[in-house]
Amino acid sequence: MAELHGVPPINTAHRVGLQPIATPSRLLLGPGPSNAHPTVLQALSRTPIGHLDPLYVELMGEVQELLRYVWQTDNRLTIPMSGTGSAAMEATLANTIEPGDKVLVAIKGYFGLRLADMAGRYRAEVVTVERPWGEAFSLDELEQALIRHKPAILAMVHAETSTGVCQPMAGIGDLCRQHNCLLLLDTVTSLGAVPLYLDDWKVDLAYSCSQKGLSCPPGLGPFSMGPRAEAKMMARQGKVPNWYLDVTLLNQYWGSDRVYHHTAPVNMNFGMREALRLLAEEGLEQAWARHRRNAEALWAGLEALGLELHVPAELRLPTLTTVRIPKGVDGKAFTQHLLNRHGIEVGGGLGALGGQVWRIGLMGFNSTPENVTTLLNLFETELPAFRSSAPVVAAVA
Amino acid sequence: MAELHGVPPINTAHRVGLQPIATPSRLLLGPGPSNAHPTVLQALSRTPIGHLDPLYVELMGEVQELLRYVWQTDNRLTIPMSGTGSAAMEATLANTIEPGDKVLVAIKGYFGLRLADMAGRYRAEVVTVERPWGEAFSLDELEQALIRHKPAILAMVHAETSTGVCQPMAGIGDLCRQHNCLLLLDTVTSLGAVPLYLDDWKVDLAYSCSQKGLSCPPGLGPFSMGPRAEAKMMARQGKVPNWYLDVTLLNQYWGSDRVYHHTAPVNMNFGMREALRLLAEEGLEQAWARHRRNAEALWAGLEALGLELHVPAELRLPTLTTVRIPKGVDGKAFTQHLLNRHGIEVGGGLGALGGQVWRIGLMGFNSTPENVTTLLNLFETELPAFRSSAPVVAAVA
Repeated sequence: MAELHGVPPINTAHRVGLQPIATPSRLLLGPGPSNAHPTVLQALSRTPIGHLDPLYVELMGEVQELLRYVWQTDNRLTIPMSGTGSAAMEATLANTIEPGDKVLVAIKGYFGLRLADMAGRYRAEVVTVERPWGEAFSLDELEQALIRHKPAILAMVHAETSTGVCQPMAGIGDLCRQHNCLLLLDTVTSLGAVPLYLDDWKVDLAYSCSQKGLSCPPGLGPFSMGPRAEAKMMARQGKVPNWYLDVTLLNQYWGSDRVYHHTAPVNMNFGMREALRLLAEEGLEQAWARHRRNAEALWAGLEALGLELHVPAELRLPTLTTVRIPKGVDGKAFTQHLLNRHGIEVGGGLGALGGQVWRIGLMGFNSTPENVTTLLNLFETELPAFRSSAPVVAAVA
Repeated sequence: MAELHGVPPINTAHRVGLQPIATPSRLLLGPGPSNAHPTVLQALSRTPIGHLDPLYVELMGEVQELLRYVWQTDNRLTIPMSGTGSAAMEATLANTIEPGDKVLVAIKGYFGLRLADMAGRYRAEVVTVERPWGEAFSLDELEQALIRHKPAILAMVHAETSTGVCQPMAGIGDLCRQHNCLLLLDTVTSLGAVPLYLDDWKVDLAYSCSQKGLSCPPGLGPFSMGPRAEAKMMARQGKVPNWYLDVTLLNQYWGSDRVYHHTAPVNMNFGMREALRLLAEEGLEQAWARHRRNAEALWAGLEALGLELHVPAELRLPTLTTVRIPKGVDGKAFTQHLLNRHGIEVGGGLGALGGQVWRIGLMGFNSTPENVTTLLNLFETELPAFRSSAPVVAAVA
């Protein structure tokens, strides 16, 4: 043991003794992660295989093909990034922005802010158009912004997880083509759950996550790039300023060359493959209709209890419902109670809606009538105890 | 179903029908991934919990603490990045390089080249010092390079997976401090398996992966940053030019603030927690000694069969052995035979060693006497059939 001669003694200060893992079974009805399908969880625990194994290469092809189906796109460059949805978000920007490019970000919630932050890090000239958190953009205001700013990219969020708004998409892709600009769309909380047509909507760049509509745990970030975005990427002057997310390199691994780039997270992709298989078996229209049906039951039930929904009915996202915390209710105490007493996670507000709303998710495997009933029963029977007995006071800011 | 009015029909061209996943059980004795411990695989399939759940926060603390133990460091900023080892590699560079910083990369294999490529993307002035693939650097040549280039960072690889060389580390950290430079170390193929003392070696930045010495599937990239690197990061003029890997933001999630950054890959971290728990139970010295013992048995057995090892004994990595492909042997045909007939993965050469060596990994859960015996038996009994019957010819280039 030559290498152990004269080496320092082992420091055991951090050698904590632990019991085997014993996480509880939660029902995750917040903004995500959502519960994964049991078949997906089983797939995660399969023995890994090599990332260049012919059988893994075949599995990669299956994942790509089914991602194209759920996104309704023929885009060749459709792959799961080896990181979470935020990594896939960054990949859409990192590969296409060149320093000085003007990027118009349409901000109507937290994830629009994040797009603007990221785009700036890639040295874009970031300009924004904003709507209050809970509203959507009209075609007219987007067109005015395109005319004013003449951006290279319009980046926006289809399904805003922070507000529960679903942006109507009709006409936006055509506008972007008229104004010679790429359309970049966040579909984190819509993929697999809400009607979404990348190609018909003329979306050039899209990203999503594994842990919502796809019923897989978090850890992969589906990514899709259309021909117009690919042309911009291939024409860039310098290397993509992000090695891990560089699609010009990833394309050699996911394409026919199979050139080693990084060691793929094979087990997560086992899960993704099964998640997509199950979704394809159910059928996309059926999954969309199920999400809509269960969300409508939730909305009706909450309103019947006298609760107010933050988003007007026509803009509501079936996957994520924002409920205004009634005056006099300690919203956080109620969600802590749901978690600690019932093992149910419901989210609080994020950013500008912090303290003002609860966020209820019905996503993928969790979009069921049973979960709606369970949650409505708890709101009916246990919320009253969290109403202040004092006279009505202003909501916690 | 207002949202379904007037929408395009579903394109089913990509709706491929698949059978349930049926990947085979492989014995992964290549450069990685290695097989994961069964207890780790079981942990992956637990029901996800929220990334801000108090129980998950507790688990994060356990993972951090045990990473400190296996790395032998007190570094506060020790976390698993939510990507593979390459993402953690990029994180060490992205957070500390400011445009124009001089980064000296000591290249003695494929992963040194990658460090240089990545550093350039962060607008460093990259300078290099090189050794042939299969050798290590002397203290003297590193000192000469530090004197000549006066870099802000010296980046190098402890355990070069492409060559099987373990770089002797004595004195390098002291040199870097004398020359006012950070020491950045790739420990992808050494963490948990080969003696490694971040703090005693005065390493300022390190990264690793989950799928080798830690016996976990690929998907997480352990990362550690010491106080000198943190000071450089905190003094930077602009934002870190990579949002996903921005440690100034991640620190708020992993630190006491628990500010949401991205949705953590919770199931992968369940696995990581169990992998680290098992390693702490075995004990670091015991794991190091086991890897050394099994590697020595492999080396002796291969040499007894007349095979030549690419790296001199004193520089050999216990985790990854490079074996020269004998003249007249079709190296690729033999590894394909091992995979297809025996379900055993052995790696081929990478980069400058392509076609010249096999790469045999004995890592983590796979470093056992049984695996050594299995592989030696196959080399003894089945390799002869792959020797050309023609007169000896030059090895495949």
